[in-house]
Amino acid sequence: MSNLTHFNEEGRAKMVDVSDKPETVRIAKAQSSIEVNELIYEHIQSNQIKKGDVLAVAQVAGIMAAKKTWDIIPMCHPIPLKGIDISFNWKEQPHNKWKLEIFATVKTIGNTGVEMEALTAVSTAALTVYDMCKAIDKGMIIGPTFLLEKSGGTKGKDFKRNDVEI
Amino acid sequence: MSNLTHFNEEGRAKMVDVSDKPETVRIAKAQSSIEVNELIYEHIQSNQIKKGDVLAVAQVAGIMAAKKTWDIIPMCHPIPLKGIDISFNWKEQPHNKWKLEIFATVKTIGNTGVEMEALTAVSTAALTVYDMCKAIDKGMIIGPTFLLEKSGGTKGKDFKRNDVEI
Amino acid sequence: MSNLTHFNEEGRAKMVDVSDKPETVRIAKAQSSIEVNELIYEHIQSNQIKKGDVLAVAQVAGIMAAKKTWDIIPMCHPIPLKGIDISFNWKEQPHNKWKLEIFATVKTIGNTGVEMEALTAVSTAALTVYDMCKAIDKGMIIGPTFLLEKSGGTKGKDFKRNDVEI
Amino acid sequence: MSNLTHFNEEGRAKMVDVSDKPETVRIAKAQSSIEVNELIYEHIQSNQIKKGDVLAVAQVAGIMAAKKTWDIIPMCHPIPLKGIDISFNWKEQPHNKWKLEIFATVKTIGNTGVEMEALTAVSTAALTVYDMCKAIDKGMIIGPTFLLEKSGGTKGKDFKRNDVEI
Amino acid sequence: MSNLTHFNEEGRAKMVDVSDKPETVRIAKAQSSIEVNELIYEHIQSNQIKKGDVLAVAQVAGIMAAKKTWDIIPMCHPIPLKGIDISFNWKEQPHNKWKLEIFATVKTIGNTGVEMEALTAVSTAALTVYDMCKAIDKGMIIGPTFLLEKSGGTKGKDFKRNDVEI
Amino acid sequence: MSNLTHFNEEGRAKMVDVSDKPETVRIAKAQSSIEVNELIYEHIQSNQIKKGDVLAVAQVAGIMAAKKTWDIIPMCHPIPLKGIDISFNWKEQPHNKWKLEIFATVKTIGNTGVEMEALTAVSTAALTVYDMCKAIDKGMIIGPTFLLEKSGGTKGKDFKRNDVEI
Repeated sequence: MSNLTHFNEEGRAKMVDVSDKPETVRIAKAQSSIEVNELIYEHIQSNQIKKGDVLAVAQVAGIMAAKKTWDIIPMCHPIPLKGIDISFNWKEQPHNKWKLEIFATVKTIGNTGVEMEALTAVSTAALTVYDMCKAIDKGMIIGPTFLLEKSGGTKGKDFKRNDVEI
Repeated sequence: MSNLTHFNEEGRAKMVDVSDKPETVRIAKAQSSIEVNELIYEHIQSNQIKKGDVLAVAQVAGIMAAKKTWDIIPMCHPIPLKGIDISFNWKEQPHNKWKLEIFATVKTIGNTGVEMEALTAVSTAALTVYDMCKAIDKGMIIGPTFLLEKSGGTKGKDFKRNDVEI
Repeated sequence: MSNLTHFNEEGRAKMVDVSDKPETVRIAKAQSSIEVNELIYEHIQSNQIKKGDVLAVAQVAGIMAAKKTWDIIPMCHPIPLKGIDISFNWKEQPHNKWKLEIFATVKTIGNTGVEMEALTAVSTAALTVYDMCKAIDKGMIIGPTFLLEKSGGTKGKDFKRNDVEI
Repeated sequence: MSNLTHFNEEGRAKMVDVSDKPETVRIAKAQSSIEVNELIYEHIQSNQIKKGDVLAVAQVAGIMAAKKTWDIIPMCHPIPLKGIDISFNWKEQPHNKWKLEIFATVKTIGNTGVEMEALTAVSTAALTVYDMCKAIDKGMIIGPTFLLEKSGGTKGKDFKRNDVEI
Repeated sequence: MSNLTHFNEEGRAKMVDVSDKPETVRIAKAQSSIEVNELIYEHIQSNQIKKGDVLAVAQVAGIMAAKKTWDIIPMCHPIPLKGIDISFNWKEQPHNKWKLEIFATVKTIGNTGVEMEALTAVSTAALTVYDMCKAIDKGMIIGPTFLLEKSGGTKGKDFKRNDVEI
Repeated sequence: MSNLTHFNEEGRAKMVDVSDKPETVRIAKAQSSIEVNELIYEHIQSNQIKKGDVLAVAQVAGIMAAKKTWDIIPMCHPIPLKGIDISFNWKEQPHNKWKLEIFATVKTIGNTGVEMEALTAVSTAALTVYDMCKAIDKGMIIGPTFLLEKSGGTKGKDFKRNDVEI
């Protein structure tokens, strides 16, 4: 039966005991995005050529944030992450807008999943792009942000998003 | 002329020198949201009555994350925050979904704005709700996340979002 | 023979090598408390009803601090915590005082115990209550703080406090 | 009128806005203690002579914890600390026990007081002593921990503990 | 008279009180370096062209480390940094070696200097290059690392390194 | 074939997946140093006798930094360290200089090595000595810093520095 497991008998939040769960390889993939105007798009693209690379900074930020997810999200377990990869994809939008899609794949061997780490990575990467481009336009929009898939761990609990279009 | 200020002469990222900017009261407000299904909505609402309070945890998470924004977003300045407030609002959606809107107001007296702190606060609060409810449904969608308004600092650089509907 | 193990051959502090110790389930329980006046007691109790919940914040603080014990206590090992639970109990005292007892149970699977994590959790929860109520009275008294019990790990090293009254 | 200021209109916790408070020199002094058995007392004392110095480690821990109080106590403001000093005093107790008193003085120039920084410093120093001596005896008792005095800031809000004996 | 100011009356370390020092613009520049073999040199250079950029990661690392110097160096004051810039310079060495010189300039408005922040930035940038290239050769040598210059603060305490060759 | 493994298919930095590597005992030793003038040398030595101990603080700093290497070096994996030991050795130099050699040994049971942890420990210890003595002379020189040896992990990848003199 489904239930908010993060609460103890007093009805207060706790960090759930996962010591009985199997230690397995677990993978999670998440996606976020940031919509920017054409000027920002051009700046990011041209700076990359000139070596000043907004996306390189965003990627480092996403990786470092994934590693400290347990220190940012209160009820998250500290998990020894084994690998983190972040990638980007530009999509042209109507009205001269560009959408930067951000993907993170996080892998661990542990007692609990790494969904939060993947979601934190893409959120932080998007926030970093915002930060580095906000001198041009503060109207950028971040997200939606969501889990793409998750595997490993207890059988039958894998997750895969079906609706490609969001 | 607009320009990505976060790069040095070699074209590499730097933390921009803000020592010439005036030290003034600066306020920023940001918004995020998380869309959940009806079961989660009911659990969150009923737990509040029973004192186990997802939103209380999310709020603490948002406040604590705002304070360490400089440690999460690489080119952000460390800013002595003077006040942080987070609030929530539920909106019923089509198809038995509920949208939890999350608002953060951050205030400082400093040389640079606190947009990133407000955006980090709402993003983290949304991630925390996801974390605490993901045992029920991993399909929750976070965002869009955006700046609502910003004031203080150099004249003419205030920002206010006009499009109420996003 | 007993001995301060945290020192190397030069007589300087080190982080003890625990790689030879068995990786087992280990549990520790600790207790702290904070004595407050009646006004604070009433405020905490009534705010809980109105959803503003000092104890909810204290609990989140205790859980988050337990996770970073290794970053606060210099010679502590980083340990992947598997579960943390914090609970509270009010006791009426003489002279219109109230004592809030704070308990933490911490669990891991690891090479070394989690006493420090449990002690750090209850200490931080108590400090958080102090912080949130100090506008009313700065005379609150925290503690005593002590280990209640510890199990798991090497045989014969379990610990259980016998004196109920402290 | 006294009141829990750490709550917003929804009754949820917030980090109080201190931007209207004067930026003044503020000082706080706090005290904690740890009671140890004679064997531990002798070990600490003799190790100091041999350079391995429990108290030196405890002191570094207390100073470093004071600096990150804002990251440990959720509603605490980040405050640029200007000075931190920790000192120790041994007191012989009945039944072959020794009490190590721990004092911290913290100073800032800021909009709000540093009580929490002083209390966090002494608590952490005590926890560090516990950690380094627990191989000998896990029955050590930390605290009571309390504010000794506080000055600076708004007039009439200074605090000084009168009861020498606790 | 010169003297180790970081000790209190008991002869123990403290964080020196700087509240009496003037709040002025302060700048510090530091230098480190890392010597690598030709294969690593070529990999770094060619990856930059292909956008995978060791130096971009090193620079982000240096900037982020500068901001948390106070959390790494025990007696360092938390200082609100106003600007950080890191740059690189390759020098060919004898025996097919290449030396990557790393420079950091850190600026603040505060009561104490930012030498440690600049030194921490260049040290961390060098360590990051080591980390990303150690799969090719673990024999890389970091440093020497030293302060180039420091200005601002109390008159007569400026520093400028004269010996260009180290 | 040698290769910068820290890059993904887009040519961007990633945290390498180590989940296929064996979990073994791994040890790394690193060395740094700091050259100081005679006055500083005497102060450090005499303060040690008077209990104020620069090296004790440096050692705590080194141990604590080793534990957060993953938070300082962007592509480093979080590794549960099992033991850390730091030691010192003074060497008289020409021209009334003294060189303090700093050694760190770090041990883990994990999927990847701890070279970065050992290098971060010695670098931080050296920076801490600089910090505590810079009131006397800002001309101190840190390093060279390098890996002495590394063992454990995949066969044939052990490393041992042969050139004693650097």
